[in-house]
Parts: sequence; structure tokens; C-alpha cells
Amino acid sequence: MSAGLLGLLRPSLTSSLRSAPTRLARFTRFRPASNSCSPSFPCVDAHAARESKLKESSRAASSATSSRTESGPEPAYARPNPTSYHVYHHPHPLTLTYSAKPLPSFDIAYETWGTLSPSRDNVILLHTGLSASSHAASTEANPTEGWWQKFIGPGRALDTNQFFIICTNVIGGCYGSTGPSSIDPATGRPYATTFPIISIFDMVRAQFCLLDHLRIDKLYASVGCSMGAMQSLAAAWLHPSRVGKVVSISGTARSSPSSVAMRYAQRSVLMADPNWKNGFYYDSLPPHTGMKLARQIATITYRSGPEWDQRFGRQLQPRPGNEDSSTPRVPALCPDFLIETYLDHQGEQFCLKYDANSLIYISKAMDLFDMTLPALQDLNLTSSTSSAPPTPEPNSARGFHKTSHSKSHPPPLNPPPYLSDLAKGLRPLAQIPTLVLGVQSDILFTVEQQREVADALRMAGNDRVSYYELGGVWGHDTFLIDVLNVGGAIRGFLS
Amino acid sequence: MSAGLLGLLRPSLTSSLRSAPTRLARFTRFRPASNSCSPSFPCVDAHAARESKLKESSRAASSATSSRTESGPEPAYARPNPTSYHVYHHPHPLTLTYSAKPLPSFDIAYETWGTLSPSRDNVILLHTGLSASSHAASTEANPTEGWWQKFIGPGRALDTNQFFIICTNVIGGCYGSTGPSSIDPATGRPYATTFPIISIFDMVRAQFCLLDHLRIDKLYASVGCSMGAMQSLAAAWLHPSRVGKVVSISGTARSSPSSVAMRYAQRSVLMADPNWKNGFYYDSLPPHTGMKLARQIATITYRSGPEWDQRFGRQLQPRPGNEDSSTPRVPALCPDFLIETYLDHQGEQFCLKYDANSLIYISKAMDLFDMTLPALQDLNLTSSTSSAPPTPEPNSARGFHKTSHSKSHPPPLNPPPYLSDLAKGLRPLAQIPTLVLGVQSDILFTVEQQREVADALRMAGNDRVSYYELGGVWGHDTFLIDVLNVGGAIRGFLS
Repeated sequence: MSAGLLGLLRPSLTSSLRSAPTRLARFTRFRPASNSCSPSFPCVDAHAARESKLKESSRAASSATSSRTESGPEPAYARPNPTSYHVYHHPHPLTLTYSAKPLPSFDIAYETWGTLSPSRDNVILLHTGLSASSHAASTEANPTEGWWQKFIGPGRALDTNQFFIICTNVIGGCYGSTGPSSIDPATGRPYATTFPIISIFDMVRAQFCLLDHLRIDKLYASVGCSMGAMQSLAAAWLHPSRVGKVVSISGTARSSPSSVAMRYAQRSVLMADPNWKNGFYYDSLPPHTGMKLARQIATITYRSGPEWDQRFGRQLQPRPGNEDSSTPRVPALCPDFLIETYLDHQGEQFCLKYDANSLIYISKAMDLFDMTLPALQDLNLTSSTSSAPPTPEPNSARGFHKTSHSKSHPPPLNPPPYLSDLAKGLRPLAQIPTLVLGVQSDILFTVEQQREVADALRMAGNDRVSYYELGGVWGHDTFLIDVLNVGGAIRGFLS
Repeated sequence: MSAGLLGLLRPSLTSSLRSAPTRLARFTRFRPASNSCSPSFPCVDAHAARESKLKESSRAASSATSSRTESGPEPAYARPNPTSYHVYHHPHPLTLTYSAKPLPSFDIAYETWGTLSPSRDNVILLHTGLSASSHAASTEANPTEGWWQKFIGPGRALDTNQFFIICTNVIGGCYGSTGPSSIDPATGRPYATTFPIISIFDMVRAQFCLLDHLRIDKLYASVGCSMGAMQSLAAAWLHPSRVGKVVSISGTARSSPSSVAMRYAQRSVLMADPNWKNGFYYDSLPPHTGMKLARQIATITYRSGPEWDQRFGRQLQPRPGNEDSSTPRVPALCPDFLIETYLDHQGEQFCLKYDANSLIYISKAMDLFDMTLPALQDLNLTSSTSSAPPTPEPNSARGFHKTSHSKSHPPPLNPPPYLSDLAKGLRPLAQIPTLVLGVQSDILFTVEQQREVADALRMAGNDRVSYYELGGVWGHDTFLIDVLNVGGAIRGFLS
């Protein structure tokens, strides 16, 4: 494994990374206004402008459906392109965690990379984060870059010379798999918010229906980052005998109240958008403003303060018609600082790319994720193993320190009750080698949660837990960026 | 000084505070739904219900203005009660940082505690955070508890046996001082967003107009927390000879991009509320939904993840008609977890208490605050001292380590350029004893920013910087809660 894996310690960031180059100082200059003028708010007008364009586009589409172009502001998810991915239609009901009534049938979109071995034993199931599609990397059918492009390919973290990699769009999503925007066969109309509450376990059960269809009995590994890490753990829990190894990067086995808070804030601004209409917006305009605002909040949770110090500092965004950034300028109530225009831009880019109801349902599924034993028992969830090894008591010599790769982060000597409950919940994973990797600057899935997963697994009797922490400033997004360290850890663990 | 001041280190929090009592486990149980029903969204309906009540109240008020009652949902700031505080009307123009045109005149609301000494030398000017009024503690005119009730009184942190304490509502606010909701004498209508952009320095200049009016030449101390700490530093910068001591608690001398991001997210959701109407809502309904959503986001920044782990964990809020919290229940898209209902409640409580435009203007003033020398020079801001001592070069023996109270947090040996710029900016404070206190769990004004202020002051030649860090889980709100440690540090420093 790479020595770089050990990363940097957080305290070292502050002094080294705040030293933005002095040449940027000229971008940070304000001056007093020489005269007053009537207030204008381009950042607010942008919402109305988007609404107008959507209305125009909607009119044009209804008058000439066949002449739709890619350039319109119509929601991207409204134009699925099933030629760019595979779709498996499961014609049987899917049992759901929180609903006595199953989904009558469902579609699951997926893409693959590499070659399935004759013995079908080289399969890696890659799980996605909240809003990702199955398009993790370019394929022949869809050559555009995927969301994990640099991690998939010959010699890469997920080595296509060796592995057959499958990535799906999760149930509840809007990129080809059945979700709130799909047609309910019972009514002929989109489910909208009549779609049942789903769980991470439901997403995984749907994936295993696909694996059954593909006649894949056992995964070489289940791999995921962020919400994908939740799915990765859930897959091993549901089917311990069908999962060879588990990779959990920047995930959790028990969503924390602070992450619930940050997702709740996003759902709140989205559901308050008048266009949301309790979720029944599919024959009118989508809640694009709420989506933009929600994405702005989400973006704050994806990176870190030290990164923004380094990347933006107090730099200003040049205004149209005021390109000379060395000229001091008058501040306004709309964005001035680069950090503000960055958030604005991230929201604008996302607001028509993803279905609002999918965001609400999937973020709720993340909130509900809790692998402590009492929570699992209440839900009548069953792991398909009945031969789990005896769970050592917390604090036993066997439970701790056996093959720790992180002696600098020893588990607590007196673990709190929830950690023991989590260890009991994770007992079906006791025999599965697991890589747990976290990032110290992550504010959404904190490093404490990474330690929690690793500790609970060890307490459950798992003596093949590889545990790493990365430094750096990229926060939660590190798994999308740090090919060297994240990719290196995965490659080492899988080989 | 109290030994308790040294506080706890952050790493110790995780293991000790996540051990929520096991008796709470019964509050966290979900179960599958036994049947499906049509979706309902009480959390969204609440906005419409509030809107209806506001409309009713508005109609009632217009038909019988004299019969207004306190119980209506009318915005609290629309009912100022000038008998409960003093108002000084300054009949002369106030120079503004970002506008060539001054405020023609202004009101400033204030309250006092203790007795002014005959020589008028025992005055403490207490500065407020973003949304606070002048009502820091109960008075004869207004016996309700104030926002810093436990810190003001005989023998308390601000000892009324010894000091005469003045607290004002800041310019830009809505609790008696001139702000966007005030009448513009030029038009006879509320300023709304024709109100000029204001700065922290402008707030302080208005306060010194009041001090002049009260014939107070020199403050014993300038004291503030959060935005109040910015004002406290700004007061000493503008009038070094009129400020005896400075207290800066959980503040900054240079707003960080992450704090700008969090305030920008709040302004965005507020300004997207259709009721906001570019700020011209004073003769219609206020943007109460946007204010609620903004406050939810703000609340996330005021506390900390470890506190929520400890306080809420994954507990559920009992639903109306489902008071038996031991009964498992079906999850919903509206709030389930206590952390969600907590945020919802905080937003609901606040949304009619404070003027939306005041929130926008004052949060922008916080973003703009930057005491580095280049920023101050661009604004033509002048400190009233011309006899500042020579500033030692960074890294000199004099600049560092002289009377450090925090040898465990030594300043960086190779300070980044912005820190040298900040030291140059803070040079007028070189002779003023200053207490800098921060909280390690604060995510809004991070502990790194506290070190930055202390380091820059020392580099500016100030050898009377007292510096403390507190542990604990209360985050930014610690200054409102931790009477023992925050109060103790202030009392020790002022005595």
C-alpha cells in the first residue's frame, strides 16, 4: 500500500493552506459607492428567468414533441436515454422495508466494465452516492466521462483487466431505475409522493435481483463511497455468503443527527418551493429553485472550510462589465465573493439534472440507515446467514487490536452502548474482509463515524478490517478526487 | 482565572458524549406500514397555515388598528415598544463605509445596567450578535430575561456593582435602531433595499455617536461575542484611545469563506421566497417561509454534531395521536427525528421575530468584515490614532510568545501573508489589553480563526493578549450557555 495513504493530520492544514498567493489580493478589493442607484438582484431574477425558459420549453415541447433539442432547460432526467445503459425489468414484486405492500415490479438501470470470467467470480458491485447514475465511467454506448472515471479501467483502482464491474442506478433514482418519477402501473401516472418510503436495504435487494438475473452467485467485492458505502455494508449484511469483500469509503453504518440535519435542511427548502406541489409536479414545472437552493446547502457539506480558504479565500467574482478585477468595487446583496458564486453555480448546474422527489426519497433513506441490532430487529430485516460466528463481548482481547492497521486510532476501551449495539448489528459481516476509509476534513460523514464502523466491525469479531484515514482539504468529496490515496487503498485491499 | 477555562480537547468528545442513555433506545423504532395511504405533508402545510393567519391578522389590523393584540402572528419587529428601551436620535449624518451618501440621521436603541460613575470611567459597551436586540438582561422597564441574562448583574461576568453597561441594537437592525424597515425621511416609506450596505465599522460609529451624546469619553472595555466580537475589535481600531480593554469571544477579524458560504445559503433561501419581493414587502406579508428556512440553516451552524449526538441521537419525535413513543412507527418525508423537529421549531420560533431585510444586511456586513491592512486602506477607513507603536516584523522575538497564555498553541513560525496583513491591520490595537476566547467545536467561527486573531494581535506588538480555547459540545452558542468558563474568563480579564 502507498505510504501516501497515511495522509496529513488536520491541524497542519490551517497554517499551510491559508497562505493564498498574494497576487490574489487584488481580487478582494471593495470601495465605497460614489452614488446610489435603485437596487437590483440578478441572483433572484435568475429564478424567474429559469422559470420563463422552462415554460417556453414546455410550450415548444407540447407543440412539437418530436423536435426536442438537448439545449433546452427541460429537466435532464425527463430525457432518459436507455440506449446508453442496460435496463433489467424485474417482473416480480420487490419486498420493501417500510411498506407492507411491495413494489409490484421495477426497472433497474446498470452499466458494466471489464469482462465477466467464465466462472463468474470476478464481479465487483459498485454502489453510487445520492444523485449519481449508473454511468461511473465511459462505455462504448456512452463515451462521456463517468462520475468515477479515473477509478475504473485497466490498472486502475477497479481494474477492468481483472474485474467485471457493475454499477446500477438505485431504486428511487431517476436515471433509468424505478423511482418517484416512474409510472405507477396501477394508475398510469407517475408515482410522485405515492412512491413508498425506501431504505438502503431495498436498494440492495433490487441490485441482487439483477445479480440473480445475471446468474452471479457471489460478488468478489461490494464497493461504495458515501451512500454507496451504506449499500456496500447492507449488501454484505443481507447476503454475507454472496459478498467476498466490502469497501466502505466515507460512509456510515448509522446516520448521525448532524447529517440528518443537513439533509433535512435540503429537503425543507425543496419542499417549500411552490412548484413542488406535494411532489405532484410532473405535468407542470419542476421545483427548480428549491433544487438549486438545496444543492447550495449540499455543496457546503461536500467540501471543507480549509479547502475554501485555499481555493477562494476572500476573492471576489468579477462582475459583468467590470472585468478589471484590480478595480475596487461596491458590494451588493447578491453574490460578491467567489465562494458565493461557486455555490450559486453548483446549484444552477444541478437544479434541472436530478428529480426533486428522488432527492427527497433517497436522502430520507440515508437518514433512516441504522445497522444497530435493535433497529434491524424492529424492521424484520433478516440476514441470509444463520451461521454467524459467536460475537465476542465488547472489550475482549479478541474484539480489539488484532490486526488493526491503525494503532494510532485504537477503539474505545469502554465503548458506549450504541457501539455495542452496532457491533451486534454488524455480526453477519464478521467473516468478510472490509476496508473502511475516511477523511478527517469530512463534515458530512465525519471521521468519528469511520472509526465507529471500523470499531464495531472489530467488536463483531471481524479481524480483517483495514482502516485508513486521509488528511487533505477535500472533505467528503475526497473519494471523487484523490485517485492516488483512495484508489491506492482500494487496489491494495482488493488484490 | 478558573482552571476550568482550559476546557476539554475535541478528540475526547466523541467517545464520551455519544453514549446516549440506553433508555432512549425505545424512541428510535421504526416499523413497516401495514397499509398505504395518501401522502400528507404537515411540515409544508405549516407554511400555508402561517400565511393564512398572517393574512387574517393583517385584515383585522387594517379594520381595527387600535385593537391589535400580542397573540397575533404579526411580525414582532412591527410592534416596537420604545418604552422598554432608550432611543437616541442622532440628528446628523452618519458616514458609511460603502456609500458616499451618508445616512441623513438615525436612531439608536439602547439599554443600560449598573450605575455610571461620577468620572464616567466605568463604562462597558456590550456588542450584540446578528439578531439580538439591546435587551441583554432584564431591566426595570423590561423585566423579561435578556439574551445574556446570566452574564450581567451583581458579581456576574459584567458586574453591575462595578460597571455601567450599555448595549445597543445595531444600525441595520429592527429593534429600535435605524434599519431597512425604518422610514426613509426622503420618501416617507420604509427604506427596504434602498437602505445602504452597511459595515461593522458603521455600526460602531453609530455607537460612538451615542457615547458622545452620553458624554462618555473612554470605555473601560468593549465586549462582544460572535458579530459582537467583530464590533469590539472595530471599536478599538476606530478609537484606540477611547477603548481601555477589548473582549473578543467566538469572533473573527476576517470572515472566512466557509462562514460566508453558510450566511449566503441563508440569504439565498430568504431572497428566493416570493414574499420577499426584492425587499419591498413592508406593506404586504413578510417572507416568513424564507426566514424559517434560513433560521434552520443558521441553527445548524450554531451548535455541533457532538452536541446533537448527545442531545438527540437518533431519537424520534412522537407524533400527534401517537404519544406512546415505545410503539414503532412508519417513517414519513416530513420530520421524524428529534433533530429535525428541533430545527423546524427553531425556524418557526424565529420567522416572525426578526426583519428579513435586517438579516440580509447584517449578515452581509459580517461577510464584508476584513481587518487586513489592504482591505482597510481600500475603504479609506481611518483609525483615530496616529501614534501607533512600531509594528515588529513577523517572526520577531517581540512579536511572539511574550506573554502568551496559551503556550500549547504557539503562533506559526512562518505566518502566511494574510496573517501579516492582518497584523498590520490590527496595529492600532497594539497597546490595548485584549481577551480572545474561542471554542473548539465552533463550526461558524472556527477555533483556527480565534488563533488567527490572537496571533495577529501579538504580531502587531500587543503583549497583553489573553487567549483561551474552550472544549465542550456547544459550538458557537457556547457564549450564550457556558457561564462558568466564558463568564469566568471575562471577569478575570476585566478585573
